[in-house]
Amino acid sequence: MEEAAGERTNLAGVRHILLVLSGKGGVGKSTISTQLALALRHSGRRVGIMDVDLCGPSIPRMFQVQDSDVHQCDSGWVPVYVDQDKSISLMSIGFLLEKPDDAVVWRGPKKNALIKQFVADVAWGDLDFLIVDTPPGTSDEHISTVEALRPHKLLGAILVTTPQAVSVGDVRRELTFCKKTGLRVLGIVENMSGFVCPHCSECTNIFSKGGGEELAKHAGVPFLGCVPLDPQLSQSSEEGRDFIQDFPKSPAFPALAHIAQQILDGTSQQSS
Amino acid sequence: MEEAAGERTNLAGVRHILLVLSGKGGVGKSTISTQLALALRHSGRRVGIMDVDLCGPSIPRMFQVQDSDVHQCDSGWVPVYVDQDKSISLMSIGFLLEKPDDAVVWRGPKKNALIKQFVADVAWGDLDFLIVDTPPGTSDEHISTVEALRPHKLLGAILVTTPQAVSVGDVRRELTFCKKTGLRVLGIVENMSGFVCPHCSECTNIFSKGGGEELAKHAGVPFLGCVPLDPQLSQSSEEGRDFIQDFPKSPAFPALAHIAQQILDGTSQQSS
Repeated sequence: MEEAAGERTNLAGVRHILLVLSGKGGVGKSTISTQLALALRHSGRRVGIMDVDLCGPSIPRMFQVQDSDVHQCDSGWVPVYVDQDKSISLMSIGFLLEKPDDAVVWRGPKKNALIKQFVADVAWGDLDFLIVDTPPGTSDEHISTVEALRPHKLLGAILVTTPQAVSVGDVRRELTFCKKTGLRVLGIVENMSGFVCPHCSECTNIFSKGGGEELAKHAGVPFLGCVPLDPQLSQSSEEGRDFIQDFPKSPAFPALAHIAQQILDGTSQQSS
Repeated sequence: MEEAAGERTNLAGVRHILLVLSGKGGVGKSTISTQLALALRHSGRRVGIMDVDLCGPSIPRMFQVQDSDVHQCDSGWVPVYVDQDKSISLMSIGFLLEKPDDAVVWRGPKKNALIKQFVADVAWGDLDFLIVDTPPGTSDEHISTVEALRPHKLLGAILVTTPQAVSVGDVRRELTFCKKTGLRVLGIVENMSGFVCPHCSECTNIFSKGGGEELAKHAGVPFLGCVPLDPQLSQSSEEGRDFIQDFPKSPAFPALAHIAQQILDGTSQQSS
């Protein structure tokens, strides 16, 4: 396959590419990627998700499509559609493993090669947004993804953090990564901000609160909002349900809808 | 420096080496590593921590020693002592960065070289336990660490998970990593199991419950225990306080003490 030609062809129909980053793992990057895709779909957009978390792919399970296979067409790999309307397409290493429990014990060069293939050889078709979910850190996957996507319509990165100081420290490092690689920061999302007890309705800031907003102010980047810790959201992610459709009364819903709206506003300003 | 000779000399006084692993990030590997070190110290053991999470080092901050520097002696780097008694020593890339916000934008080979140095060139002295805190995944850092430590007294790995299915799936991958690399699994710890509301004392399983125990049964490896989600524990980690000393009444305390005891029982059986 001619890679350079493939690269130009396969991402030509993609209008905006968004990276979801966080120095730290377990802060909800995949949950935010998934819910953001759903929120953008609810606004009538066609969305793709490229999962470059090669050692811990979790998006296929979140959409309950972990048993799907990737097929080949003339222009490359056909991504997996997560719904019947084919409004969300997904590419993940999870679809390429023989058994879902297989460990991807790969050093950098092998990971870099697969990421190049994800960028060049997936037949994404026409998309309003391609959301790229990344693993924790600032290493091979991140460098290779940014390098491979740079010639395309790379809008920028959303940084996800939890409110603790340790996690905020990792995002601070991710900010310097963005600066070093010339990647625009679209904003910071603070996830798991507070837990509202379903028994007594009192809110406890399990992981403390406000670190994300403070960091955004300090770094001079937009703060996109707090998403509260919500057992319905984590259950919904686990069961592959459409959270935004199922739980419009959850405290996490307006937060997620607001984040999606800001992305839409940003891109419509850009195109106008 | 002669690497092979250094390797033999610098880990010669270390009796047991433990890896703390998890496929997924943010499940509390660093918290469990830190608290386990403190619990073992309370039992009179000398403990070292080797932090090989090169892109997101969080242990220095958990002990409030992030501003310390590493010095050189004849036999290599002197680790940082986290207390006046010098009963816990720590080596982390955090001590080698000019600014703590610096992003370590390194590809695999550079990371592998530093891990080899951490194994060969740190003057650990006499230790009962060396705890190795790892980044999420099953990639360069993990392969290099296991390879470099294999000639030494590598006891095995503790796998940390949260109860959600997604996290449990990542640990399942980590189990196949252990099998592939011949690393003994000492047991599984389920972290953040339930949240006891401080207002009404009702317990909510924010991230569901029981996944870790089920996985341990299924895989035929020991289940070391559940550590409940405890705001005091996360605050204590953040402020670098000795949780086990400060909060003996916290629901997380007996869980952590029990895990440490099982490690001690396992090693005393081994030596008898």
